[in-house]
Amino acid sequence: MIQGFNPRTGKPAGEPVAETPGADVDAAVAAAAEALPAWAALADEDRARALEAVADALDERTKELAALADEETALGDTRLTGEVGRTTGQLRLFAGVLRDGRYHDVAESPAGGGIPEIERISHPVGPVAVFAASNFPFAFSVMGGDTASALAAGCPVVVKAHEGHPSTSDLTAQIAQQALASAGAPAGVFALIHGVDAGLQLLKHPDIAAAGFTGSTAGGLALAKICAEREVPIPFFGELGAVNPVVVLPGAATQRGADIATGYAGSLTLGAGQFCTNPGLLFVPAQDEALRGAVADAVTESSGAPMLSERIYSGYEAALAEIEAHPAVTSVAAGTTGEVPWGATPRLFATTLEEFAADTEVLAKERFGPAGLLITYPSAEELLPVLAQLGGNLVGAVHGDPGDQADLATARQVIAVFQRTVGRIVWNGWPTGVAVNAAQHHGGPYPATTAPATTSVGSAAIRRWLVPVAYQGLPAELLPAQLAPAADEG
Amino acid sequence: MIQGFNPRTGKPAGEPVAETPGADVDAAVAAAAEALPAWAALADEDRARALEAVADALDERTKELAALADEETALGDTRLTGEVGRTTGQLRLFAGVLRDGRYHDVAESPAGGGIPEIERISHPVGPVAVFAASNFPFAFSVMGGDTASALAAGCPVVVKAHEGHPSTSDLTAQIAQQALASAGAPAGVFALIHGVDAGLQLLKHPDIAAAGFTGSTAGGLALAKICAEREVPIPFFGELGAVNPVVVLPGAATQRGADIATGYAGSLTLGAGQFCTNPGLLFVPAQDEALRGAVADAVTESSGAPMLSERIYSGYEAALAEIEAHPAVTSVAAGTTGEVPWGATPRLFATTLEEFAADTEVLAKERFGPAGLLITYPSAEELLPVLAQLGGNLVGAVHGDPGDQADLATARQVIAVFQRTVGRIVWNGWPTGVAVNAAQHHGGPYPATTAPATTSVGSAAIRRWLVPVAYQGLPAELLPAQLAPAADEG
Repeated sequence: MIQGFNPRTGKPAGEPVAETPGADVDAAVAAAAEALPAWAALADEDRARALEAVADALDERTKELAALADEETALGDTRLTGEVGRTTGQLRLFAGVLRDGRYHDVAESPAGGGIPEIERISHPVGPVAVFAASNFPFAFSVMGGDTASALAAGCPVVVKAHEGHPSTSDLTAQIAQQALASAGAPAGVFALIHGVDAGLQLLKHPDIAAAGFTGSTAGGLALAKICAEREVPIPFFGELGAVNPVVVLPGAATQRGADIATGYAGSLTLGAGQFCTNPGLLFVPAQDEALRGAVADAVTESSGAPMLSERIYSGYEAALAEIEAHPAVTSVAAGTTGEVPWGATPRLFATTLEEFAADTEVLAKERFGPAGLLITYPSAEELLPVLAQLGGNLVGAVHGDPGDQADLATARQVIAVFQRTVGRIVWNGWPTGVAVNAAQHHGGPYPATTAPATTSVGSAAIRRWLVPVAYQGLPAELLPAQLAPAADEG
Repeated sequence: MIQGFNPRTGKPAGEPVAETPGADVDAAVAAAAEALPAWAALADEDRARALEAVADALDERTKELAALADEETALGDTRLTGEVGRTTGQLRLFAGVLRDGRYHDVAESPAGGGIPEIERISHPVGPVAVFAASNFPFAFSVMGGDTASALAAGCPVVVKAHEGHPSTSDLTAQIAQQALASAGAPAGVFALIHGVDAGLQLLKHPDIAAAGFTGSTAGGLALAKICAEREVPIPFFGELGAVNPVVVLPGAATQRGADIATGYAGSLTLGAGQFCTNPGLLFVPAQDEALRGAVADAVTESSGAPMLSERIYSGYEAALAEIEAHPAVTSVAAGTTGEVPWGATPRLFATTLEEFAADTEVLAKERFGPAGLLITYPSAEELLPVLAQLGGNLVGAVHGDPGDQADLATARQVIAVFQRTVGRIVWNGWPTGVAVNAAQHHGGPYPATTAPATTSVGSAAIRRWLVPVAYQGLPAELLPAQLAPAADEG
């Protein structure tokens, strides 16, 4: 049985949920495979309406969903209400992507050189497995971005629920299934399963054509390996951990050090630091002692929050123990811990660039929680090669004074490094706060993700679930509807 | 030393070529990594001109290139002259892709929800390793589609030459390097290496960001494994073998059996059957004895040709021995073998759908050479599930009578199966003959390729070498040129 816990009390939240038996996993995948042709063949408008029906149904139950999720995650009503909205916004975004139609990626080339005309269009890859994340119980969970984008692409989806919020997952799934059915979606187009074993069985099922995952590096790499070693390997779109370096340039530090300090502490402690976009590494000019003090003060003034689970809390404590024991690191600030069993204390550690560079294996590691490492750098020349050697990250941020030519010159160099090492570059802002739109790229080089050319947030997320087919010399009556002359000339 | 051989005589062709020493492989990759920023930063127009300079230089030396390649491959002057043209056509196609500019995949989203505006653009992934194929000494070799598309994307390229045509590879590389240098490309943007060990070292080099490959299933899967097991895994775009099923429907068999028979034999024996698009499996209606006879006659009348190497010839002989020994298979036709040491005899074997389905592991295997397996199917109902169970293929073809409603109905069902199992669907034509254009998709589900969403032929091949980066809140002066307001609003 899978039991959710209330992070505020450490006590069970709600009834335990049964792990999905093997036969039911097989049945869910079989139903998904059976649903594929009908779901894939639906007109864009009809699939868009089905997604909107799910969005409407979830919106209607926002209060209930947020309250249940708060029991299981303690993320608070404001955040959770907003997250339901973000989730339904994502579903509507993909409805818009469907109506726009460009996602079909249609191309047409005339006959030539003895070869007839060729038309190309993308088709859904097949039934998709989605592994829900713990830290966004809606937006990266059962009906989150992976599920929404895969359904939009015409792929049936089987979601493996996260153990952290089983009841929230069940309620979300029930609402979604009802809405899909009312909207005329084929049975089997969406299913939820519970349990680690069930998830592994799902991933290995021959009818599963691709998988999406948001979670830890270790978990993601283990699943990626399974996908690669299947008899028929499948693409695994894993969004793993990141430390998201933030570089403060000297001009910005002088100009608005106080703002930067409070902004950093706010981003670091958002969601108890349990965001994949958490700014784990803060690079500040060595000469600017004021900024260092301000950051330390801001972290000291920040409050902890309950972490999502005992496992995550223990992991955070272990990460803190490791970095505290590091000879080259000093602990410079600690915020307030709440009166809760799994309360994360915001922490700030400090080291020099030289020490950091000497042991990036430990020091550049993700510490899942509100623990920041402040790294003092003596000069841009020394900073750049160290930044270049960091592993892939989801986000890199630069703070500079737009009126300071030295800052701008260094910013260009930092950005040139980030272009090869992160998925999103932020100017005078923070990595947290991921806009869901057409231009978003929530990805990044390995090990931030296992598929650096793809995004798990925003319109382009649909591309992960599509594969092209070229049609050579087919008469209109045999072409897919979107390619037939009567249809949109796309 | 690597020695090319003349397939017409089995004797050495030209001087042996030295294997590239490890230090030189490292130097080539280091130079590629150093060339990356300058090559990536070149304006589209300048990179387009550099590709055209290579195309012009190769065109100018067509005669010499074709003659040298004929020594090493015996593919004949007409084919090889045409293939140089195809290769330079590919280079010019990508020059056009650069000028078109849409490959940048620019997207812009306005500010909203407290998050500044985001612009996205794709950047070159980094230095690329290309493994050249044996069967197209120009179009899928040193300056073939992989190299052309990667260079176009802004990626420096290191090519591992195929052992089958080392001198042709060297001459191609020399011409290309000179042309690139004259066109102002940075040194190191392109290099050629020789030898299996050199190739493995190349693939494992930490500065290599992606790899392209066209070749055998076994070779491709071995390289894919290396890419997956690197400390930092890299994408491997492998185009492996295929058997490319061709389905003849009853109406077409009646209407134009003779044409189909000669068309099939022609496609089967093209390039001595050494094409990845070779139609290895021919499904014909069981009731139509005339068609079977016509196909057998056409194969009997066909002539063999020298294969590219002793290894390929031995492989073909072994594949023939295996299928000849199969209890459920009969040998129904053999063409003429040329008076050459590695002459491939065109062969036709036959079996029933039932027997075929009972042992697809052996019978649906690629036989690299002009060996076809004719499979008689009793009905569409029985055919469809067998087709659906074949592994992924590059191409599937259907022959039907456009005026026959029964053919059209079955064709729809076959096409629905092919949509999930092949990369390109051909109507009343043959899998060989791959157009190089914007709509082409030369790919297909595993094991036809290791990256089913991508193509190795046509304009879209450039996408393999690009990764997006999102820019959040950056002032125009810090954005990449293509995103800055002064540039194309794309």
